[in-house]
Amino acid sequence: MADCLIIVNAGSSSIKFAIHEAAAPFGVLLRGLIEGIGTAPRLRLRDPAGQTLVERDFPSEGFGHAAGMQAIMALGPEFMVELEPRAIGHRVVHGGMRFTVPVLVDFSVVEALEALQPLAPLHQPHNLAPIRAVAELRPGLPQVACFDTAFHRSQAEIAQAFALPRALSAMGIRRYGFHGLSYEFIASRLPALDARLVSQRVVVAHLGNGASLCAMQGGRSVASTMGFTALDGLMMGTRAGAIDPGVLIHLMDTQGMDARALERMLYRESGLLGVSGISSDMRTLRGSKDPRAAEATSLFTYRIIREIGSMVAALGGIDALIFTGGIGENDVATRAEVAAGCAWLGLALDEGRNHTGGGCISADSSAVAAWVVPTDEETMIARHTAQVLQRSSP
Amino acid sequence: MADCLIIVNAGSSSIKFAIHEAAAPFGVLLRGLIEGIGTAPRLRLRDPAGQTLVERDFPSEGFGHAAGMQAIMALGPEFMVELEPRAIGHRVVHGGMRFTVPVLVDFSVVEALEALQPLAPLHQPHNLAPIRAVAELRPGLPQVACFDTAFHRSQAEIAQAFALPRALSAMGIRRYGFHGLSYEFIASRLPALDARLVSQRVVVAHLGNGASLCAMQGGRSVASTMGFTALDGLMMGTRAGAIDPGVLIHLMDTQGMDARALERMLYRESGLLGVSGISSDMRTLRGSKDPRAAEATSLFTYRIIREIGSMVAALGGIDALIFTGGIGENDVATRAEVAAGCAWLGLALDEGRNHTGGGCISADSSAVAAWVVPTDEETMIARHTAQVLQRSSP
Repeated sequence: MADCLIIVNAGSSSIKFAIHEAAAPFGVLLRGLIEGIGTAPRLRLRDPAGQTLVERDFPSEGFGHAAGMQAIMALGPEFMVELEPRAIGHRVVHGGMRFTVPVLVDFSVVEALEALQPLAPLHQPHNLAPIRAVAELRPGLPQVACFDTAFHRSQAEIAQAFALPRALSAMGIRRYGFHGLSYEFIASRLPALDARLVSQRVVVAHLGNGASLCAMQGGRSVASTMGFTALDGLMMGTRAGAIDPGVLIHLMDTQGMDARALERMLYRESGLLGVSGISSDMRTLRGSKDPRAAEATSLFTYRIIREIGSMVAALGGIDALIFTGGIGENDVATRAEVAAGCAWLGLALDEGRNHTGGGCISADSSAVAAWVVPTDEETMIARHTAQVLQRSSP
Repeated sequence: MADCLIIVNAGSSSIKFAIHEAAAPFGVLLRGLIEGIGTAPRLRLRDPAGQTLVERDFPSEGFGHAAGMQAIMALGPEFMVELEPRAIGHRVVHGGMRFTVPVLVDFSVVEALEALQPLAPLHQPHNLAPIRAVAELRPGLPQVACFDTAFHRSQAEIAQAFALPRALSAMGIRRYGFHGLSYEFIASRLPALDARLVSQRVVVAHLGNGASLCAMQGGRSVASTMGFTALDGLMMGTRAGAIDPGVLIHLMDTQGMDARALERMLYRESGLLGVSGISSDMRTLRGSKDPRAAEATSLFTYRIIREIGSMVAALGGIDALIFTGGIGENDVATRAEVAAGCAWLGLALDEGRNHTGGGCISADSSAVAAWVVPTDEETMIARHTAQVLQRSSP
């Protein structure tokens, strides 16, 4: 029996999971997804090559995150006969100020994470539901919580502060930053890319359906565009990104919008979808001849270029720009447009390399290096989970 | 009898006014202020050297902006015996998308400006009250409205857009930018400072109780930190500046804050005052040994440095940084800290010149020039008023 780790990333209606080796290089053995929780739950399990091994439908009645985790654990006897789960590693969006590193979950940790729910009401409850379910199903199985905020706790106080009354800052209203597991994975890749990057000033652009930037030096976060929530900073698939707070007050006054209406608009109806009126999907927009599609993609890259300026100011200069995430890894045009907007920093892409898309994509003469580096949050969670297990074993 | 212009800048409880020559160089002849409207109205009139000529108290009962304008007009027989007002020029905060240049006020203009009140509910009504009062008191006297937003209408569409649903953009939810009369005055000074600046990439930092940045090229606005309202962008005396919209939703949900409570907090209880817990006045904070004062001033300069990065990205580089406004013109430490944070751009101050404070303050070796240039919104309004009069005279 080989040891394995189960990595879980739970959303409101889905549980993404993966089975990883329990030791370096923590290779992925199986991947799966339960989606349609609450409507038409379906589990899909695939091998690492993407071949579907099983698809299973469940009645929606009573099938929540607990039943989902039960279904995942039940795959063992059938598909993991040679595998023994040693622990479950969970992606948890919010670790607040307290959780600056991954942590072995016990009752008091779950309580502390529940107390953070008001900071991420749309995500945190769904992250915690599978943890509670496994604690009941398999009380002896260690669980590790890995936080999307933790990587940014290395930032100076000043980079985390809002200019709000002190009473609000004391309540935890500050810039937490997100996508931390992705940035940490990229940071871990730097030595293999170019040993100089380890100590250099690097801006990482995590561009996916969610999008943010991270300014890093010495592999540590110095600043990030996301703030208190995952709404701030860059324009995203359906999120507005940074917006004048006066807009919210205006919409409350003139349109009678309440917190839920504002939330729906800013999280789900804005960004690429809102500006184009067509789609939140960059591929669809790049393929469209509708001028509104070009308006949306141009605003997307313009906001990235502007925020890169702010990140570089936080670093006092830039040595490398790294693209990652679904758009960052795959959209040649976004990379070309962003790089063109960073020409003033000394960045010049090699057009051929950018088309190929892997590894270094800057021209040999470029003063600033540019890279495409695929991110892998699951492997990052697997590494953390193994480390926490090792630290906590007697 | 010499012609003169009356320049009016009305706030919620005050009317600032000045009597200017009606022709170039539009020198100021008298300055005045009515404050305490609604509580204990008092008018002060001073000569250009600052000597008080008269102080007059009024009963608060029934003394609004109309009575204030009547009191100002009544000064004529006593203090302006040799002066004949040719027109009144008004500072109006919001010109929306329609008013891209100053305009002679008639009934339809007042109506259009009233329709913009929801865009600036805290300022626009007070700007319009004196216009209506004069139209009744002296129907034949030409009035010119000069807009704080107009200068920024030269920006590309992309710099004015939020990533919101198109229906909201169509409703006028966009980045207007403010302090336009100040930026326009600075732009008009460029040829006299250094002829090269006229075509160069310039960032102007208007740092006062309100604070913003403007990225200019060819003397035109390319981008600005203020957005839909005067809340966005930099940290200010009592305003928070840019803030994650998720913070507002969180405060509505967890603290039960409504639009008025959010408005009060973000406009009046945040910024230097909120972070220090001491004062909104930079001079007080610079003189304080309380560590909270240093936290507030450090955050103030950090946010400026970060946003300068974003402005420079909009320009694709920078040739000069200009400080203006109360803090920009007078606070040596703010200029030194901001400049230190811009060293990566090639900016180096000359310490002695920065202490002296007038004109060019960068070192001879600095790749980026730095200047202190006093702003003068009133003279800008006087120039506009004379130009509009000339254009509209038969």
